[in-house]
Amino acid sequence: MDQIVQPLASTSARTRTITWEDPLASARVGANLSGIDYLRAVAKGKLPPPPIALLLGFDIEEVAEGRVVFIAETGEHQYNPIGVVHGGLAATLLDSAMGCAVHTQLPAGRGYTTLEIKVNYVRAIKRDSGPLRAIGTVVHMGGKTATAEARLLDREGRLCAHGTTTCMLFG
Amino acid sequence: MDQIVQPLASTSARTRTITWEDPLASARVGANLSGIDYLRAVAKGKLPPPPIALLLGFDIEEVAEGRVVFIAETGEHQYNPIGVVHGGLAATLLDSAMGCAVHTQLPAGRGYTTLEIKVNYVRAIKRDSGPLRAIGTVVHMGGKTATAEARLLDREGRLCAHGTTTCMLFG
Amino acid sequence: MDQIVQPLASTSARTRTITWEDPLASARVGANLSGIDYLRAVAKGKLPPPPIALLLGFDIEEVAEGRVVFIAETGEHQYNPIGVVHGGLAATLLDSAMGCAVHTQLPAGRGYTTLEIKVNYVRAIKRDSGPLRAIGTVVHMGGKTATAEARLLDREGRLCAHGTTTCMLFG
Amino acid sequence: MDQIVQPLASTSARTRTITWEDPLASARVGANLSGIDYLRAVAKGKLPPPPIALLLGFDIEEVAEGRVVFIAETGEHQYNPIGVVHGGLAATLLDSAMGCAVHTQLPAGRGYTTLEIKVNYVRAIKRDSGPLRAIGTVVHMGGKTATAEARLLDREGRLCAHGTTTCMLFG
Repeated sequence: MDQIVQPLASTSARTRTITWEDPLASARVGANLSGIDYLRAVAKGKLPPPPIALLLGFDIEEVAEGRVVFIAETGEHQYNPIGVVHGGLAATLLDSAMGCAVHTQLPAGRGYTTLEIKVNYVRAIKRDSGPLRAIGTVVHMGGKTATAEARLLDREGRLCAHGTTTCMLFG
Repeated sequence: MDQIVQPLASTSARTRTITWEDPLASARVGANLSGIDYLRAVAKGKLPPPPIALLLGFDIEEVAEGRVVFIAETGEHQYNPIGVVHGGLAATLLDSAMGCAVHTQLPAGRGYTTLEIKVNYVRAIKRDSGPLRAIGTVVHMGGKTATAEARLLDREGRLCAHGTTTCMLFG
Repeated sequence: MDQIVQPLASTSARTRTITWEDPLASARVGANLSGIDYLRAVAKGKLPPPPIALLLGFDIEEVAEGRVVFIAETGEHQYNPIGVVHGGLAATLLDSAMGCAVHTQLPAGRGYTTLEIKVNYVRAIKRDSGPLRAIGTVVHMGGKTATAEARLLDREGRLCAHGTTTCMLFG
Repeated sequence: MDQIVQPLASTSARTRTITWEDPLASARVGANLSGIDYLRAVAKGKLPPPPIALLLGFDIEEVAEGRVVFIAETGEHQYNPIGVVHGGLAATLLDSAMGCAVHTQLPAGRGYTTLEIKVNYVRAIKRDSGPLRAIGTVVHMGGKTATAEARLLDREGRLCAHGTTTCMLFG
């Protein structure tokens, strides 16, 4: 992977530095909490945010039973080769909001894994589109599986993307 | 977005710094090239990689007619709150591989936009799973729309995720 | 297709006979109406229902701006080899409800084509589950594409399946 | 399939009559067979086809380890209100081919349920498009879940639709 070198510094070069803590330490604490308590601890800063959230620039804004809202900055660091924010950001935010919405309904000792996500893109996201909000809600909570949906809104509340997910529950 | 503060430095703190160039400059060059020529220029380092690729740690490994392979490092910086690489990484890589596979079949002056992606997750990705390879191939190339599929393999060639996409063509 | 022979008549044999009218005649009338007027004409019986609706046993119950409800009988004729109603019925109903919801927002002279659907199955459907209701609503209406979602409920209002779609608009 | 088509009742009215046997009797036999043996018994006519297959007009053409091919007639009875075969037919065929491909890899005593399907439509299907072939193949076979994909081809081998599925395994 030699190709993944930083481009030579130039007049237009920008940088971004992130710092994070051991994510497994936080995950181990989470294993002893109900989903909603764990997510609230992260939302309140009692547990460190996961590295991916620092890397891309997003955070939990709201945690309720069956509903989680993420908020995300937008910036050039998220750009793809065709001059807009990469669709992977929307997928990451919707996936987070949907998975965490399911997680809020799991007691301590139960976990989930995401089997699939589907994302519809309906409006391009640019560096000034944010802050974005990804609102995830549970659609179906069963004994072995759950489904959820989410919508991603720009700073003006316009729909940028929406999605659904299927999660498997265990424990 | 005051919440998005760096955690206090501690014995376990890690950092990642990336540097990139103006992505719109590169996108403007791309607008005058066929898709395959543009992607080859990025793959060969003649055009700078997009910021998202530097941020997450991925690059183009192979560009052919109707097929693009991305290679990605895996690391703790991509971790989610439950102790594995966030599903958003797989979504980003599959989305990239599929969209670029479609792009290889577009002449100069034509563009595409991704309408939707669907991703199945079949194996957890951890920091030592990489390098990952996302292999995208075109399934259907029409006049107004195209579809593609992709598979994400770990360092041992085991399937981690797979997906499909629908793109709209224009220009 | 010699294999598709009728099973020998036996004490347990059941039959279903449907009768329909030329569907292209109805489609030609529809081409001169707005989507909502066309669907209302079908709902009120002024235009004959499409053959597929007679074959599977479903009908339009409600047509509003951006929202269409289908109602469906359930019965053994829809059964799959593992002893429940085939998932294709739910897919057909959700697809119909979503596509028609989009259609309600198109003026005369505009049309749509369905690019993709995704369906989540959350509860098995049996012969006594019906009548089923498939409630489709528009999520995004753009100039070139639209998205919609739908939910399928059993006779007691319990969620059986839900889905999303992407449509391309033309004309 | 002349046996199951009735003469035209009038200049414009058409009819279709189907006859089937108790689908639960067949499902009970299937519960004691491996998936591949059960599907082969249906393919060879040793067990009656499920009603949905008679209703829509499809049958199993080929059963192999991890791969099942369905063949389907096309006709006016499958038409939707906009003058082509309803997308529900493609969804039903792809769902069948994918689910049965998974089923071929399950021993007696194990079962599956379909959690979700996603279908891309790339070519309109008309009454003279058939016979259609839906070719389903397993993508991932795990201990608790499986994924599969399928392609639907017209009489000339052109791609009409393609899909993926997620199944949960049990027993």
